[in-house]
Amino acid sequence: MPERLINHLTRFVNVPDEDRATILRYFRPVTLNKKENLLEEGQVCQANYFVLKGCLRMFFVNEKGVEHTTQFAIENWWMTDNMAFQQQRPSDFYIQAVEKTEVLAINFESQEQLCARLPQFERYFRLVYQKAYAAAQLRIKYLYDFSREELYHHFNDRYPDFIQRVPQYLLASFLGFTPEYLSEIRKKKRS
Amino acid sequence: MPERLINHLTRFVNVPDEDRATILRYFRPVTLNKKENLLEEGQVCQANYFVLKGCLRMFFVNEKGVEHTTQFAIENWWMTDNMAFQQQRPSDFYIQAVEKTEVLAINFESQEQLCARLPQFERYFRLVYQKAYAAAQLRIKYLYDFSREELYHHFNDRYPDFIQRVPQYLLASFLGFTPEYLSEIRKKKRS
Repeated sequence: MPERLINHLTRFVNVPDEDRATILRYFRPVTLNKKENLLEEGQVCQANYFVLKGCLRMFFVNEKGVEHTTQFAIENWWMTDNMAFQQQRPSDFYIQAVEKTEVLAINFESQEQLCARLPQFERYFRLVYQKAYAAAQLRIKYLYDFSREELYHHFNDRYPDFIQRVPQYLLASFLGFTPEYLSEIRKKKRS
Repeated sequence: MPERLINHLTRFVNVPDEDRATILRYFRPVTLNKKENLLEEGQVCQANYFVLKGCLRMFFVNEKGVEHTTQFAIENWWMTDNMAFQQQRPSDFYIQAVEKTEVLAINFESQEQLCARLPQFERYFRLVYQKAYAAAQLRIKYLYDFSREELYHHFNDRYPDFIQRVPQYLLASFLGFTPEYLSEIRKKKRS
């Protein structure tokens, strides 16, 4: 299963066979049950997580106690609270398994050491962060530009499998509306 | 003036003196008058821009013809439409000078060549994109979490100099409200 990370790496950089075991020693596998938390608000965000199998979501709880899901991560995606990770400080977010999930975790110091030891990791993470930032820039545009209903249709058109996989109440929390409103939009589309 | 880029680099990585001239050859200086566009919607986004002096804003025009500013960049910040830059495709955004502005521009191919030639550039851009992504992740949280008035106060507390520097109508466009509403909030705070 950890080979999934090596496969992902080789999409971006060359990974000589002799480096593979070394690389994997920087990571520890973590298995989570459905709804188990990998990170909780107030905890120092120590690790960056690569999803081998399953699905994570990142959310925060607002002053009124309402959860807002800001991000999902499925196979081959990285997830962490990057500001808290870089600064090794307590997080404002939770990271939770949406279904039974297996991840590889790498601590902040280990990620820096790995980049210093194997220059292709600098390149790999440069490309991963570059892509993630590009997607976040567009996401911010959509949050300004789209109505909630348009956000749903946009997401539905781009990630149809994802829509099937994530429970409806989490999708509603991600899109910023109630499950009832989501259900109405879905009915409207069907008719 | 281009030394400002070298100074920024040395905050993150070692830059041997003999590499400095080589590095600067990958960049071309561009000077913009106030309100001059560096990129327009529909143009292929060919370059990434480092601000030497002045201020840029990124905005899009919605279906109703209304401008929304999604980002500003002042001295030492990088700005581009990253998705369009990576994919070398037409942009959905405009990038415009808020005041007279000097930037260094690097084309996509040149940025890749520079990273391949000088490994410390892989590291530099890895760290720049990592920070930018971390900030964007928090920005997305604020867009979910804060009312418009809270967004203004948050921005005002964190970037007081910036608030003084950017014209009020652009700040309103960034915060997603009308200049009149911004003026009301400012009066309320003073009283």
